[in-house]
Amino acid sequence: MTAADLSPEAAERLDAADELAAFRERFVPIADPGVVAYLDGNSLGRPLRATAERLQELVTHEWGARLIRSWDERWLTLPEEIGDELGRVALGAAAGQTIVADSTSVCLYKALRAAVALRPGRDEIVTDAANFPTDRFLVESVAAELGLTVRWAESDDVAAATGPRTAVVTLSHVDYRTAAITDLAAVTRLVHARGGLVVWDLCHSVGSIPVELDAAGADFAVGCTYKFLNAGPGAPAFLYANARHHAEFGQPITGWMGAADTFGMAAEYVPAPGIRRALSGTPPVLGMVGVREGVALLAEAGIDRVRAKAVALGRWVIALADAWLVPLGFTVASPRDDARRGGHVTLRHPDAERLSRVLIDHGVLIDFRRPDGIRIGLSPLTTGFAEVRRAMERIRELAG
Amino acid sequence: MTAADLSPEAAERLDAADELAAFRERFVPIADPGVVAYLDGNSLGRPLRATAERLQELVTHEWGARLIRSWDERWLTLPEEIGDELGRVALGAAAGQTIVADSTSVCLYKALRAAVALRPGRDEIVTDAANFPTDRFLVESVAAELGLTVRWAESDDVAAATGPRTAVVTLSHVDYRTAAITDLAAVTRLVHARGGLVVWDLCHSVGSIPVELDAAGADFAVGCTYKFLNAGPGAPAFLYANARHHAEFGQPITGWMGAADTFGMAAEYVPAPGIRRALSGTPPVLGMVGVREGVALLAEAGIDRVRAKAVALGRWVIALADAWLVPLGFTVASPRDDARRGGHVTLRHPDAERLSRVLIDHGVLIDFRRPDGIRIGLSPLTTGFAEVRRAMERIRELAG
Repeated sequence: MTAADLSPEAAERLDAADELAAFRERFVPIADPGVVAYLDGNSLGRPLRATAERLQELVTHEWGARLIRSWDERWLTLPEEIGDELGRVALGAAAGQTIVADSTSVCLYKALRAAVALRPGRDEIVTDAANFPTDRFLVESVAAELGLTVRWAESDDVAAATGPRTAVVTLSHVDYRTAAITDLAAVTRLVHARGGLVVWDLCHSVGSIPVELDAAGADFAVGCTYKFLNAGPGAPAFLYANARHHAEFGQPITGWMGAADTFGMAAEYVPAPGIRRALSGTPPVLGMVGVREGVALLAEAGIDRVRAKAVALGRWVIALADAWLVPLGFTVASPRDDARRGGHVTLRHPDAERLSRVLIDHGVLIDFRRPDGIRIGLSPLTTGFAEVRRAMERIRELAG
Repeated sequence: MTAADLSPEAAERLDAADELAAFRERFVPIADPGVVAYLDGNSLGRPLRATAERLQELVTHEWGARLIRSWDERWLTLPEEIGDELGRVALGAAAGQTIVADSTSVCLYKALRAAVALRPGRDEIVTDAANFPTDRFLVESVAAELGLTVRWAESDDVAAATGPRTAVVTLSHVDYRTAAITDLAAVTRLVHARGGLVVWDLCHSVGSIPVELDAAGADFAVGCTYKFLNAGPGAPAFLYANARHHAEFGQPITGWMGAADTFGMAAEYVPAPGIRRALSGTPPVLGMVGVREGVALLAEAGIDRVRAKAVALGRWVIALADAWLVPLGFTVASPRDDARRGGHVTLRHPDAERLSRVLIDHGVLIDFRRPDGIRIGLSPLTTGFAEVRRAMERIRELAG
């Protein structure tokens, strides 16, 4: 890269040329003058104005006036309706394969149980030794209860660790620490060639980079909606099961919403046809409002434009870091290759933990990840180039 | 009972004497002039004005302005904080034993798994053959995956069916069809005497009748918050685990929120001390708003006054039914003994399904339960005596 123009005017030019800049107005303004930059949308995306409005409408009209009737009129089918739209807009998934429900942890438990049961006779689950804690904990729990072995592998090498005993491989599509992208299609192909199934965790990719689950022939996937989809704190997660598994797959949390006839009060559990059998309890209607609005906004913006801006923002962070922060002892921990980097850039610094606290106190809202990572989250629908520059300037001042 | 005064004036006198009447103003008005009476609060309680207001404040301030900082400032501890308050106000549970999380189905799955694991060597789960579908389905699923036998019993006889092989008995405190109350303390005592544990489903009792979990020495309990607690459609459920089980109990959905150090990114799952280990994924913050407000309102009203009014409303329904509907072929399916009847009255009628549709079309919002039950739900914080009378009048007209 030639010496980049890092001036305030350069940032302004980038913002002026940004096709997605206007989307920022669709969000609730940050009513805190102390916030210099919000660079943690990869932990918690900002609220849409439409979400606030729809919540009021829901409470007043759907819940408050239509009352119980809204279940039949609108709510019962929301898990698939929103799931279908999410699949279309962000997952490369045809309708009927995605539901919105529960939390990522619960969805992952269900997906792992479902996948393992489809590979009887195989006794191993393979995962990344540095996978996100929930993923590792659940792999261990499922393995322990079913008498399987966990095979821990390095993230670059997980597919290679797959063998004839492998029932399931489970991986994060984008690494929560470094934003490194795993080649979803290639890994899926390789695991399938060895007779296993793959459960993808899309928490750090959904809404940030295009995902092509159907094209890759992926088996199961889960992810959260409160990061790049801006659905709100603890908003429901999603679960995808490829249609080719629908005739056979099951999961153990067999609540009434996953039954073929929810209100039939049947004597025996008969799973609903298709993806609906992945449901358990009553759908979280308030929480789904933010998911629907987040997905609708993404549909309007288009995942490809979002991805293009995420790449440009990532380059901008790296250029600023190289010029200003590397001389102060920072290193860039994320891939420099755009094609291999997801929606955040992680900077490492020996004093990252203390520095993160100082930054947050000064209104630069980044995210600290142990032991020494500062994550700069880039949410293309809300993050601006000047905003990023202001943040990097403060990091330089405060770390200098 | 002597011939009751069923006149409109009698209804007015009952409403005028009602200590809880003013609480109705705390709810969002029903902005649908077609609604004659809302008698399905035992399926979906009405929204509080405070919930609508707090949702806006949450979106604008906590989520929109404090952003990610709200997790540390407020949100992470909500599952226990609201759980503690719910325990104090409605469950007879000392602090530290109740969390708000997931759905009832997921909580019940966790509670059943936890309870069964505490009774190794016993291979039977006992439940009511007519229990709510989710409960029956989950009992079957847990039994199947762990190689246990399900022993189905009649509801009056479940405790008697408990024997030396019984690991766990699971029952609904209030029957969803008839509102019959099971003696929680007596059943718990009997099952304990035979060496088993009890998992209570409080869906149809919480917020309607006082529950005394600690006094009864109950082991585990779960329930929903969207009925008598008015927390909203699909609002999070709760799970209670008695403190004497905290050192030992576990559950298989070992997500990061149940770990001792959620953000430690530890290599191994170490369960949090106490009830927090029952958590899995990121807490549903928006959904918890309604739970907090519903519990706060109940604290203000007092569960004993709520119960007293529920009893009075139930008597009123039965008196009206006896006078007006029994001659038309209805029967009262709920216990006539106040002490044995929960927060709704079920009327049976051979043509109940069609009649329910007609009633709902005419703004009398009741609930049909197969095969022939019409549930008249009584929510003491919103239901009035004149409202009930209007509804019963319409039922008489429409069924006549």
